[in-house]
Amino acid sequence: MNKTTKIFGTEDIRRVIDAIGLDQVMDSLIDGLQEAFAAYDESSIEVPVRNGFHYEQPKSGLIEWMPVMSRGQHALMKLVSYHPDNPETEGLPTILSTFSLMDTRNGHTIAISDGTLLTALRTGAASAIATRALASGAGGALGLIGCGAQAVTQLHAISRVWSAEMVLYWDVDRAARESFAERVAPWLPDSVRLLETPLDMIVPNVDVLCTATSIAVGEGPLFQRCRTRKGLHLNAVGSDFPGKVEIPRELLHESVVIPDFAAQAIAEGECQQLDLDHVGPELYALLQSGEQPELREMTTVFDSTGWALEDLVAMELLTDWGRELDLGVDFQLESIPADPKNPYVLADNGKLEKSASRH
Amino acid sequence: MNKTTKIFGTEDIRRVIDAIGLDQVMDSLIDGLQEAFAAYDESSIEVPVRNGFHYEQPKSGLIEWMPVMSRGQHALMKLVSYHPDNPETEGLPTILSTFSLMDTRNGHTIAISDGTLLTALRTGAASAIATRALASGAGGALGLIGCGAQAVTQLHAISRVWSAEMVLYWDVDRAARESFAERVAPWLPDSVRLLETPLDMIVPNVDVLCTATSIAVGEGPLFQRCRTRKGLHLNAVGSDFPGKVEIPRELLHESVVIPDFAAQAIAEGECQQLDLDHVGPELYALLQSGEQPELREMTTVFDSTGWALEDLVAMELLTDWGRELDLGVDFQLESIPADPKNPYVLADNGKLEKSASRH
Repeated sequence: MNKTTKIFGTEDIRRVIDAIGLDQVMDSLIDGLQEAFAAYDESSIEVPVRNGFHYEQPKSGLIEWMPVMSRGQHALMKLVSYHPDNPETEGLPTILSTFSLMDTRNGHTIAISDGTLLTALRTGAASAIATRALASGAGGALGLIGCGAQAVTQLHAISRVWSAEMVLYWDVDRAARESFAERVAPWLPDSVRLLETPLDMIVPNVDVLCTATSIAVGEGPLFQRCRTRKGLHLNAVGSDFPGKVEIPRELLHESVVIPDFAAQAIAEGECQQLDLDHVGPELYALLQSGEQPELREMTTVFDSTGWALEDLVAMELLTDWGRELDLGVDFQLESIPADPKNPYVLADNGKLEKSASRH
Repeated sequence: MNKTTKIFGTEDIRRVIDAIGLDQVMDSLIDGLQEAFAAYDESSIEVPVRNGFHYEQPKSGLIEWMPVMSRGQHALMKLVSYHPDNPETEGLPTILSTFSLMDTRNGHTIAISDGTLLTALRTGAASAIATRALASGAGGALGLIGCGAQAVTQLHAISRVWSAEMVLYWDVDRAARESFAERVAPWLPDSVRLLETPLDMIVPNVDVLCTATSIAVGEGPLFQRCRTRKGLHLNAVGSDFPGKVEIPRELLHESVVIPDFAAQAIAEGECQQLDLDHVGPELYALLQSGEQPELREMTTVFDSTGWALEDLVAMELLTDWGRELDLGVDFQLESIPADPKNPYVLADNGKLEKSASRH
C-alpha cells in the first residue's frame, strides 16, 4: 500500500516565501497564532512540558522534544537543538529543528519539515501578539539585545503590528552587532532608524524590548535594574533552560509577567526567578479575557519559552501552503507492506530464500 | 551551506534485505544488540522512560516518543504509534514508526528513516537474545500467541538462535491465524512443523512461548495459570501500556522476570503486575553477569516493552548499510542559511521586498 509522507525542506519554505511574500507569511503566522490562542483549551489541545538531553561534551548543547496534539486530528513532534557555538564553529544556526506531523487516526506520518525557519518565524509571531496586546502605544523605540537569528524575526514580526520608528540594538558579539543592519536591510523599511547602541543606553530608552541572547546558564541577567520608560513591554525570548535568565529579578517583580506556557516558563523561563503567586496569566488566557488597558500603562514581560502549540500552527500553515503550491516531496518513508501483518512482504517474496542455519 | 539529511524509506530497507539477505540482516541485529547490551552503562547511554499521547477518539490509539542518546555521539528520537484497528480499517500495520538520528555535536539531523520494519526486527532480535540466554535447551517447541506482524519477526529471530522444531500458533483473529503459515512460508525451513493450535494447548506444551497480541487494556491476561513445561521461557512482547498485560500474575510470581528496561516495564510491562522486589535483573545486566545455568531450569519471562537502545542499534546499522550500499536520499531538510545569523537569507535576497505596512 502506498501511503507517503510529504517532506518539506528549506527549498520548499523558500518557495512559499517567494510565492506569498515574507510579510504575508509572517502576517499569516501572527493571525494563525492569534486564532489558536483565542481558541485554546486543554480539552482540545494537549501540550506536555518539553524534555530533553543536555550535555557539556563534546560541546555545550541541548536536544529537546516538544510534542503537541490537537485531539482527534494531529500530533506534532518538534525536535529542536540549541548549540550556541554553532555559528562560530560549525557554520550552522544556533537553533536547528525538524517537525514530524502525524495523523491521530492511524499514526501515519503525514509530513516532515524543517523546523529551523518555522521556529524563528513563530517565535517572532508570538512576540508580535504579546506586543500588540501589551505595549503602551502603537509605536515607538524598539530595543533588541542579542542580534542573532532570532532578533531578525523578532524585528520583522513586531514591525508587522507595531510601528518601530527607531531600533536600538546590541550584541556582546561584535560580528553579530556589526552585521545586523546589513542583515535586515533587504526588507526593513528605510524610514526605520537602526542604531547600534550600548546595552545600558537601550534599556531606559525603549518602549518595547526584546532579549534573545545565548547568555550562559548562571551568567544572567543581561543588565541590572535601572530606570525604564512607563509602560515598557519586554519580550523575553532567550530564557528557556533551567538557570538561563536574561531579565533582572527586581524588574520582573515590578512587572506583570505573562508566560506563554506557565508550567514550562516556571521550569525554564524568566518565571523560574519568581514565586508562583507572582506569575501572571498565560498569554492565551489574557487574550481570551479581553482588552485590559491598564496593562499597557504597566511594565509587562512576555516570558516566551516557546510553546509547542505555536509550532503546530506553523506546521499546519506550511502543509496548507505546500498543498496550494504543490511543494514537498512525496516519499514512501514508512514500511507499509501489502499485507499489514507481514513485514517481510517488502522484500520481494520471490527473492526471499529459505532461512539457513546460522552456524 | 549544504548540510543534508539522509532519508531512508521502505525501498531502502528492501534493498538492504535484497543485498544482504534477510537472515543476515537479522543476525547482524542480534549481534548488534548483544554487543550493545554487553557494553551498556548509564554513563554512556541515556534512555529516558518513554512518554506519549493516548486517546480513544477518533479511535483507540497511542503515539509515543522514545528518545535515546549515546553521549558525545548520537541522539535518536523514535516516534512510534499503536492503532490496533489499523490492519482491519486502514490497511496499515498496527505499529508505525519513524526514526530521527541527530548529531550531538551540533544538533544536525543526520538521518530520518522508517522505523516500522526496524521496530519489528529489533523486537524479534531482543527476544532471540533472551531466548538464547534463558531457554532450557537448544531447541524444541515454540508457541506464538498473537499472529500479527510482530509474530513474524519473533519466529524469524528466535529461529536464528534456537532450533524451533515445531511452532504452535494461535490468534483470536481467525484471518490472522489462518494466514500465518502462508506469511512465513517463503523463508521458514520446510523442516519446521507449523501447527495452528488452540491457545490452551499451546501453553502447557511449548519450551519457548512468545506473546505478541493487541489485547485491550484491562482484558488480560491471555490465559489462566496452568501446567507448563519445566524451564519454560516466555517472551512477553505485547504488554507495553498501563493496564495492558498478557501473562497471568500467578505465572509471573513463579517465574524469574527479566525486564528489558525496568523503569519502563514497571510502568507499562508485565512488571506492573509485580511488587518491585519480584522484578529480576534487566536483560543487559543478566548478560553482563555471565552465564547462569540455573535460570535455564526455571520458568523465565523476558518482559519486552521495547527499549530505545535497541532502536539506536538498529538505526546505526541501517545508516552503515546505507553508506555501504549507497542508499537513501540526500535532502536539504533543515534551513541552513549562508549566514547562520540570518534566517531570511534563504529567500533570495534580490526578491525580498521592503516590508510594507500591514493595514
